[in-house]
Amino acid sequence: MDFKTELKNYQNIVEKELEKYLKKDVCPEIELNKSMEYSLMAGGKRLRPILILSTCKLFSGDYGKCIPYAVAIEMVHNFSLIHDDLPAIDNDDFRHGKLTNHKKFNESTAILAGDGLLNYAYIVISNDLKNTTEQQELSKKLQVFNEFAESVDRMIVGEYVDTEFEGKPISSEYLEYMHKNKTGALIRLCVRIGAILGGASEEELAKLTTYAEKIGLAFQIKDDILSEEGDSLITGKPVGNDRVKNKCTYVTKYGIEEAKNILNNIIQEAIEIAETYKENGEFLKQLAIYIKDRNK
Amino acid sequence: MDFKTELKNYQNIVEKELEKYLKKDVCPEIELNKSMEYSLMAGGKRLRPILILSTCKLFSGDYGKCIPYAVAIEMVHNFSLIHDDLPAIDNDDFRHGKLTNHKKFNESTAILAGDGLLNYAYIVISNDLKNTTEQQELSKKLQVFNEFAESVDRMIVGEYVDTEFEGKPISSEYLEYMHKNKTGALIRLCVRIGAILGGASEEELAKLTTYAEKIGLAFQIKDDILSEEGDSLITGKPVGNDRVKNKCTYVTKYGIEEAKNILNNIIQEAIEIAETYKENGEFLKQLAIYIKDRNK
Repeated sequence: MDFKTELKNYQNIVEKELEKYLKKDVCPEIELNKSMEYSLMAGGKRLRPILILSTCKLFSGDYGKCIPYAVAIEMVHNFSLIHDDLPAIDNDDFRHGKLTNHKKFNESTAILAGDGLLNYAYIVISNDLKNTTEQQELSKKLQVFNEFAESVDRMIVGEYVDTEFEGKPISSEYLEYMHKNKTGALIRLCVRIGAILGGASEEELAKLTTYAEKIGLAFQIKDDILSEEGDSLITGKPVGNDRVKNKCTYVTKYGIEEAKNILNNIIQEAIEIAETYKENGEFLKQLAIYIKDRNK
Repeated sequence: MDFKTELKNYQNIVEKELEKYLKKDVCPEIELNKSMEYSLMAGGKRLRPILILSTCKLFSGDYGKCIPYAVAIEMVHNFSLIHDDLPAIDNDDFRHGKLTNHKKFNESTAILAGDGLLNYAYIVISNDLKNTTEQQELSKKLQVFNEFAESVDRMIVGEYVDTEFEGKPISSEYLEYMHKNKTGALIRLCVRIGAILGGASEEELAKLTTYAEKIGLAFQIKDDILSEEGDSLITGKPVGNDRVKNKCTYVTKYGIEEAKNILNNIIQEAIEIAETYKENGEFLKQLAIYIKDRNK
């Protein structure tokens, strides 16, 4: 199967699972739930859940046990988007080419919808833990739950640092720290969830964690580049958005050409790790290239 | 020991534990952590954690296993206060007689501090679960984690309904639904956590759940009464705040006298349940009276 078909297949699986969890658990009558569903089903790339499933598949054909965590991570991701877009934080009107949550609904609904999605992720996890009877499996999942909560904390801290440094000079160490936390923490978590639940050895877990750290940083740098020179009709965000807002990014810090060089080098390092898995690693290799080459 | 001394003892235990968790885990360097600490240590009544500990004590002298959940519930409670106070929601400037989080810091920090506290509760729970080796104990705690996440969801929905009905007429069924969720869900959860971890039978759990539902509703009605006729120097909130904002409360719906009658009846029902535990139930009995008679 070629990469694009496989990616699309994964996306379809994730969409279906998200809908299933929504239908089963989120009561549609109140507007708050509509608001949560609006953002969750707004059609992102589903990169994070796909990373969980495809990493698990390196070790095990059955990624079914990862599904609740794939759903939970997408809920957390969308919580963070809703809150980041709020007037008091990034004040963005569009996301994925659609109105942001607070523009579509209102600000108080958006705040509570974000809260609801973050908390809903833990409902999903708690249901899965409660229904896991096999001891070794449960022990792995408790490790995952712990890393999950710790990573979300890092993401929130990263977003805080991003907000605080808006319009201020930033050291390259701090810029990397911010990116590592804001975007990197969840991407790293996803690969680790897939590896842990798939049954990776400690050594493989460490290797894949490095892969994840590379693509996480690359993802953010590419975002910075797209913000500067992407097609706003495709990205769904206005061009030059970061610059206008005086955001500290790889582009504003190093210039566009150097940012691209850094991106290429990091992706190359990620590819080399994926290649140690021979044909099994093909999807993760192509995913790294996709992160570099995507136009949204 | 008289009730006030015992209450004070419990409060001291909770304050110390909260500080311990903060010192151990929250890095103080970044302002976001200061903001989380500011609200968490602002000196609330600590009613929720105390309910967990004192309910557990009905069954077991050792409430140590409840401590992480007592800490986590206070984090969640403070998350909800920070977000409820935001300009887009209740727009309150004071809480416990101190500036609200967004007034002391700023709005973006307050949003992220709330997010951080909600998520931090789950870090605390995940750490405790990971370190629990005994199987029966773990199984009880997984039940608690699940009820925890479900109750937080109900609290968020309750807050949403409260916000949505501001300035609109509301049926008595909906008013009770809102109160049950907004304040009642966490109070019910606390009693259930104490009972489950303390080792209550199913029958006792059901009885104590009824007690919790009574005092939860009573707590909210008393809040409504205090908002109308409390001493703002003591409550730390302006008098008539709810009325000015056109909030739907027991007072605006039934009038102050009828609200007091309803409160008295509900507290009497809670007392009768506590009394079935004879002298062991004395603290829960006095706590019900305290909820009715408190002036803040």
